[in-house]
Amino acid sequence: MQSRFFTLTDHPQGTPARELFALREAELDELADGEVRVRNTWLSVDPYMRGRMTGVTTYIEPFELGAPLEGAAIGDVIESRAPDFPVGTKVRHMQGWRDIAQLPASHLEPLPGHDVPEQTYLGVLGMPGMTAWAGLNRIAEMQSGDNVLVSGAAGAVGSLAVQLAKARGGTVVGIAGSQAKLDWLESLGVKAVSYKDRDAGELTAALLDACPEGFDVYYENVGGVCLEAALNTLRVGARIAVCGLIAGYNDTAPAPGPSNLAMVLIRRARMEGFIVFDHWSHYPTFLEEIGPQVARGDLEHDETVIDGLEQTPDAFLKLFEGANRGKMLVRL
Amino acid sequence: MQSRFFTLTDHPQGTPARELFALREAELDELADGEVRVRNTWLSVDPYMRGRMTGVTTYIEPFELGAPLEGAAIGDVIESRAPDFPVGTKVRHMQGWRDIAQLPASHLEPLPGHDVPEQTYLGVLGMPGMTAWAGLNRIAEMQSGDNVLVSGAAGAVGSLAVQLAKARGGTVVGIAGSQAKLDWLESLGVKAVSYKDRDAGELTAALLDACPEGFDVYYENVGGVCLEAALNTLRVGARIAVCGLIAGYNDTAPAPGPSNLAMVLIRRARMEGFIVFDHWSHYPTFLEEIGPQVARGDLEHDETVIDGLEQTPDAFLKLFEGANRGKMLVRL
Repeated sequence: MQSRFFTLTDHPQGTPARELFALREAELDELADGEVRVRNTWLSVDPYMRGRMTGVTTYIEPFELGAPLEGAAIGDVIESRAPDFPVGTKVRHMQGWRDIAQLPASHLEPLPGHDVPEQTYLGVLGMPGMTAWAGLNRIAEMQSGDNVLVSGAAGAVGSLAVQLAKARGGTVVGIAGSQAKLDWLESLGVKAVSYKDRDAGELTAALLDACPEGFDVYYENVGGVCLEAALNTLRVGARIAVCGLIAGYNDTAPAPGPSNLAMVLIRRARMEGFIVFDHWSHYPTFLEEIGPQVARGDLEHDETVIDGLEQTPDAFLKLFEGANRGKMLVRL
Repeated sequence: MQSRFFTLTDHPQGTPARELFALREAELDELADGEVRVRNTWLSVDPYMRGRMTGVTTYIEPFELGAPLEGAAIGDVIESRAPDFPVGTKVRHMQGWRDIAQLPASHLEPLPGHDVPEQTYLGVLGMPGMTAWAGLNRIAEMQSGDNVLVSGAAGAVGSLAVQLAKARGGTVVGIAGSQAKLDWLESLGVKAVSYKDRDAGELTAALLDACPEGFDVYYENVGGVCLEAALNTLRVGARIAVCGLIAGYNDTAPAPGPSNLAMVLIRRARMEGFIVFDHWSHYPTFLEEIGPQVARGDLEHDETVIDGLEQTPDAFLKLFEGANRGKMLVRL
């Protein structure tokens, strides 16, 4: 059986050129004992994948040029030599960027049993949702009544972060770019602020206009002007959960950091970076809390869906244009 | 009775000009019930005072132009209408920058009873020492065996920080400027690295040469190139205690921050600003632990002493040239 997959032909400099992603086909090996074949139905593309394209080890191994790219995926077992995963089982795994995956059963997770569409386990009930939850609860230690600021607030992670924060009762402000995202955030009861065409001073003023007493928690997905403005709006004892810094992921040269890091001192703030995989042992707790809320429709979780394996690189590249509202997914 | 004091005639822009400090004299009010008069014997000058000269409230009220400047001081009670502080009592208080202080007894502390010179309570057993201790223990949560990096390592705070860290058994590296400071640090068993004439890349290489496995804790007194280099040398889970950022205190325009803040994310590091006064309830614990060590001579605590009230502004300004080793003091 053949598998079609994307591979990277060279390490990108700056924004990756579409041409660096090559669609290849290869015959799969004989299925070994303990292995299964999965027909992928949904692929996840995520900003963190940009970091794996540089050829440098950060917190995760870099992608190997010429090898199939990887990422979260959902699919159906179509051939099995693993008794726990018979044909027809729906699974989640990390062999995305391809149509047919072949892997040992130990690398598979059966989908949890909540009454939700399967792709939900790539979004609000998957890594991005868990990231929002872990960042707010385990890193920022959000308390009831905290005022919370979220950048990238209409993205896969941010859109859950604002809703979890809102449920705790403080003022919640979300930063986003497009009018459609701002409107969507407002429809969730979140005060939406645009960063577009604003320098740090102007964004600071807009944030303090939305929440004059300032923020106890800043959930950071973006960096750049958002971080500089956010630092100006911290309350004493504020916590910053640094989840992502997408503004800089395609930089070819290091960009200067915020000129007001002294606010960390003045406001006795804590800024902490985290990687969701370090907190994965808490995934069952997360799922128990958030799963039923999603199944009941109590949490909004938009998806931006692109159809067809061939479009996977395009879906990935759109992340850096801010083209997605909620989770960016590829449907096969 | 007359008191001679320094006052600020205008808010400094950049490095304060010596001429902004004016020595004035004023007749003290009649001593009220509950008040004492203190003849100051030692005055403290500290980098944080620069922040109080801007006219802007940060974490502490700004100095008022024309009013006596303030700061920690040690002295002897020479007149008393407070029974708990009879004439002859040695006290610590915050009416520095002057020869004679007059204040309510509630603003005085009697000196603790360790067998040490009185000015020690302005340095290693005072605010700077407590700052080193609180930053390492309460903010950075230093553990036995941690590799610790300290900037401003030969200063009043840093010189205690390196010794406390060294006693816990990991590799301790101190950043300083002059050869005399580097030699002194080496004599304490600390690996000393100069930041002079080095860019962030060169300083990074020098730090990793001194401690190839990187640092669990970074005690930050300086900012600028020290912070940028330190971020490159963090181990996973590192903690940065942000005590001071003296490199930027005299900036007239905001300087760009480190271009590698993403290391906070990649290394899942925590950066936390703190103000020692928030931790002052732990001063007795600090004193109980560190006091006997200082009395026994187990901890080095250099002083840089300037003589005469008239020299107080000069002593203060020398802090920004890195002219002090250990605590900078004015002896009256």
